Amino acid sequence: MSVSAVAADSSVCAPLAVLGRDVTVPLVTGGEVTYAALDYAASAPALQRVWDDVAAYAPYYGSVHRGAGYLSQLSTDLFENSRTAVAEFLDCREDDQVVFTRSTTDSLNLLAAALPAGCEVFVFETEHHASLLPWRDARVTYLDAPRTPEEAVQTLERALADREPHGPALVCVTGASNVTGELWPVRELAAAAHAHGARIVLDAAQLAPHHPVSVRELDVDWVAFSGHKLYAPFGSGVLAGRSDWLRAAEPYLAGGGASRKVARRPKEAGGGVDVEWHDTAARHEAGSPNVIGVYSIASACKALTEAGFDELVARERYLIRKVREGLAEVPAVRVLSLFGDDAPRVGVISFVVDGWNSSHFAAALSAEYGIGVRDGLFCAHPLLRTLLGAEAEEPGECGAPEAAPGEKSLNAIRVSFGAGTPDEHVERFVRAVKELVADGARWNYRTEDGRCVPDTGAAA
Amino acid sequence: MSVSAVAADSSVCAPLAVLGRDVTVPLVTGGEVTYAALDYAASAPALQRVWDDVAAYAPYYGSVHRGAGYLSQLSTDLFENSRTAVAEFLDCREDDQVVFTRSTTDSLNLLAAALPAGCEVFVFETEHHASLLPWRDARVTYLDAPRTPEEAVQTLERALADREPHGPALVCVTGASNVTGELWPVRELAAAAHAHGARIVLDAAQLAPHHPVSVRELDVDWVAFSGHKLYAPFGSGVLAGRSDWLRAAEPYLAGGGASRKVARRPKEAGGGVDVEWHDTAARHEAGSPNVIGVYSIASACKALTEAGFDELVARERYLIRKVREGLAEVPAVRVLSLFGDDAPRVGVISFVVDGWNSSHFAAALSAEYGIGVRDGLFCAHPLLRTLLGAEAEEPGECGAPEAAPGEKSLNAIRVSFGAGTPDEHVERFVRAVKELVADGARWNYRTEDGRCVPDTGAAA
Repeated sequence: MSVSAVAADSSVCAPLAVLGRDVTVPLVTGGEVTYAALDYAASAPALQRVWDDVAAYAPYYGSVHRGAGYLSQLSTDLFENSRTAVAEFLDCREDDQVVFTRSTTDSLNLLAAALPAGCEVFVFETEHHASLLPWRDARVTYLDAPRTPEEAVQTLERALADREPHGPALVCVTGASNVTGELWPVRELAAAAHAHGARIVLDAAQLAPHHPVSVRELDVDWVAFSGHKLYAPFGSGVLAGRSDWLRAAEPYLAGGGASRKVARRPKEAGGGVDVEWHDTAARHEAGSPNVIGVYSIASACKALTEAGFDELVARERYLIRKVREGLAEVPAVRVLSLFGDDAPRVGVISFVVDGWNSSHFAAALSAEYGIGVRDGLFCAHPLLRTLLGAEAEEPGECGAPEAAPGEKSLNAIRVSFGAGTPDEHVERFVRAVKELVADGARWNYRTEDGRCVPDTGAAA
Repeated sequence: MSVSAVAADSSVCAPLAVLGRDVTVPLVTGGEVTYAALDYAASAPALQRVWDDVAAYAPYYGSVHRGAGYLSQLSTDLFENSRTAVAEFLDCREDDQVVFTRSTTDSLNLLAAALPAGCEVFVFETEHHASLLPWRDARVTYLDAPRTPEEAVQTLERALADREPHGPALVCVTGASNVTGELWPVRELAAAAHAHGARIVLDAAQLAPHHPVSVRELDVDWVAFSGHKLYAPFGSGVLAGRSDWLRAAEPYLAGGGASRKVARRPKEAGGGVDVEWHDTAARHEAGSPNVIGVYSIASACKALTEAGFDELVARERYLIRKVREGLAEVPAVRVLSLFGDDAPRVGVISFVVDGWNSSHFAAALSAEYGIGVRDGLFCAHPLLRTLLGAEAEEPGECGAPEAAPGEKSLNAIRVSFGAGTPDEHVERFVRAVKELVADGARWNYRTEDGRCVPDTGAAA
């Protein structure tokens, strides 16, 4: 089935308007072309609606909380109402807390700092480093990469069954892989966790921008996501869920806002200070909050909900089909997958091209086609080693190590897209892959500051 | 000297253009008035120039670091060049690191997490909670409030002389008080710290927006500040300074970006993962960075530098004189001070009004004059207890506890301003204080959700 055949599907909705949709970039081969942002999995452009909301609010920005002025009160309401909007977006339970952080990484580090004493953590080796690494004070069990969703559940169940069952435990799992885009069986993993007395946190960084996330339906204890992948790149993230561990934990940051009362202890009582901490979300939000970042997330949540996830998912499936069917026509391309071709997925697809260094390929997509993808190991090194072989490594030199035809690639190329991606971007991408594989790059490239860049005036 | 006499000084520059300068707010007494944002010490409006830079960049926003596309590379350059711009703004030493955080609070928590084992910390009780509280794993010596800058240096010297001199030690000191606005003798404190083998971090949250800060001249080891007080309210902050402690410390957040290489350890080697962390600033910046927040800080640094701190300081001194001389004409007003009337200061002035509950007074300034100030204890509880008495507390009810004439106020009102403040705002403020004290509020107020708000339709 050709790309044009897929394109004939006219039932899908139009892309949502995003910032930068008209930005043009120069091609090394001459001329300019509109930029095809196909690195949504790293960071997505702002929705126009989100930008418009931020721009409309910005003149009304004011100091929140104890500010007595009109704009302070407006900003405080906007900030606290954003919490409610996020809770609604995630379909949280009534007594869940929504804590604003700076990113998914920050959210998971916060949860890691809030683990009860002796908590065991279970995490698949396939996770992003943000989910793999924060559990520094805990005993962590790394689970082998499963090859089916069912195997994932079985692997987790076996590991949980082996543990000392009376202590606290936490499972951390991604909703959608940042490498393969594949959906993980979150509801089933949550059921397994709870059946064994463990809790579960959902890393929804790659899921929330693409699919509705219901804390109640999935029955997860916490969910974490980032604004900047959800079309709100203004520096905020979310950790939402059970309040008990959060309330019992030491404040994540110590400072103003988190402290209700601070008093010097009398010298005869040993000196020092006594602190009463808040037990609301503020406990973990010391310092002046990023009001614009938080508001931008609430705006994105509303925009996606209003656009309708049914429509967005249908459109994304259509784009995924275009890309996958296009890549399937190129024998040199191998798409990376854990769960196989038919696994449901979001618009995140990683692949290697036989005979190509991935950085070189990605650089040619940029310089010759105006397409922005990503190359490397995508902050998921163990997974990439599972998928590519133990010698997988971050690219250093452009074109070196050059994979000879038939040799294994040492890292991969990732194309990712979402609600703002027009058909033309993925069509151009598929055409570019076909042309590069068939004809080679039209330019020469060299390494500069660890990047693969076009060699000045060096057409191939 | 009357306000109009001060206003005759025409040698000062115009205020810098800030967002929201034309925003009008409703008065409870009828009509609208332009909003007078006089809570800069909590959070300042964005400079128009900063907003324009952000708005111009936003369509070009792209995923940083391993993104291969044109906008990713542009954004990566913008992000890393912002580091250079901040280093120049702070006059950093060549081998200093600039780490981007979310705020001053975050910066100091990062430094606290990077203290060498056994590090002692020395901090004046007069500090903001962000400087008082982060040192949770350290032995902290809280120093009594000094009543002169010289006493501050002597107090520190005595405390350092008493310590076991061979272990690591850190002094944390504010550049300008967030309560009194008074400048602290940073250079002298740094010299004292170094003479006793200690290091020093400067909390420049209130200093950097108002005065040039030179790491070299002050000879401080680190400096921390927030974007949102420096006219760049987009969720980023800075910790800049010596790299040795930062490089030796565990990463502040664990995740992608901070990790160079992650590998599962063979099962026969005990399982788990081996991680190689970066030893650049990236070590402490895990997760996708807040590119817009970081860029906005760089933009603000450039805008302030180009406007010229000589001009800005002169203008601010003129505004300070207007406010202080105006308040001095109201016997019921007591301005809070540690170092006395003649101490150099930034545009941050806290005061109490005899016979007034501070929340009530602040609410009337807002509702009847469109002026936004702040009331409470300003996240500096021990200092406020020193200045107001041991019973000082955050306001709960509006008008209760109502201070009777001659009684002590339990919390204070803070007016603060900066580069964007027009004369009219401080003139209106002085007039409003005089009218409220002379005639009382024209409206009745009640407590709602912990805020003091006008009672609907209840003119006094």
